[in-house]
Amino acid sequence: MRLSMAGEYAVRCMLYLSAQGEGTVASRREVAQAMGIPEQFLAKIAQQLSRAGVLQILQGPRGGYRLPRDPRQLTLLEVVEASAGEIFLNDCVIKPGCCRRAEHCSVHNVWQKARTQLRDTLRKATFASLLRQESCLLAHPRRLREKHPGIVGKNL
Amino acid sequence: MRLSMAGEYAVRCMLYLSAQGEGTVASRREVAQAMGIPEQFLAKIAQQLSRAGVLQILQGPRGGYRLPRDPRQLTLLEVVEASAGEIFLNDCVIKPGCCRRAEHCSVHNVWQKARTQLRDTLRKATFASLLRQESCLLAHPRRLREKHPGIVGKNL
Repeated sequence: MRLSMAGEYAVRCMLYLSAQGEGTVASRREVAQAMGIPEQFLAKIAQQLSRAGVLQILQGPRGGYRLPRDPRQLTLLEVVEASAGEIFLNDCVIKPGCCRRAEHCSVHNVWQKARTQLRDTLRKATFASLLRQESCLLAHPRRLREKHPGIVGKNL
Repeated sequence: MRLSMAGEYAVRCMLYLSAQGEGTVASRREVAQAMGIPEQFLAKIAQQLSRAGVLQILQGPRGGYRLPRDPRQLTLLEVVEASAGEIFLNDCVIKPGCCRRAEHCSVHNVWQKARTQLRDTLRKATFASLLRQESCLLAHPRRLREKHPGIVGKNL
């Protein structure tokens, strides 16, 4: 029970774009190198994120990716579900009729509750709040930038 | 992000044994048929549950499976983790050093919080409480037994 690599990379990509700010274009190579994402995999993930409306793809030599909205309006839940699919923990929660126990199953209620809690926690985490926490942690951004080149967004 | 079939079947198996009561032996065939679990798969899952100490395997012609403790002392968390592995949502939560962002990553904290909530919810669900809820739902146990033969434990 864990997040797929696609989900992990999607979160990193959106964290980087959020750090650049709404509307700033970053090339695929730049995002991939900064966040340690295989470039071809990133291309695939960006398509999914674009379809979900959380990332814009710009074609052409000066193209790349950009955040189409304020990072305060973008949540971890949206990015995780856009890239790794809907969170449901157990089939019975979103597929009525998949289990013959459904009619009288007490475990179903526990999964339902756990899913609601998990989604609420991820919904509360906006990318703006995540970035704020990262910049609080970064007491010495220059030193960190030297240690992990490119890992910190330009605007941090 | 969902429970494996092994986890799902393990929960069903333990629910059935809990309904029989602590120490009552049920054959593998009985459990498999009652809960819709492929018998060979159940044999494998029972080995895992046995190693984790939540199920006892009795060999011989009158052998089978039994619950070695009070269902009030058995939690959904134990059964899920015994069969499907530790719940961690994202690698970084239990594998320090697996991600170069770990030092200053704000998303890590969200995964950590989500994991704690999820595990707490599953820990609070004892098999005794699950059975109580099922028996409340079963307003007409005889009718339900006829509709789904074997699905309701003998003691319900």
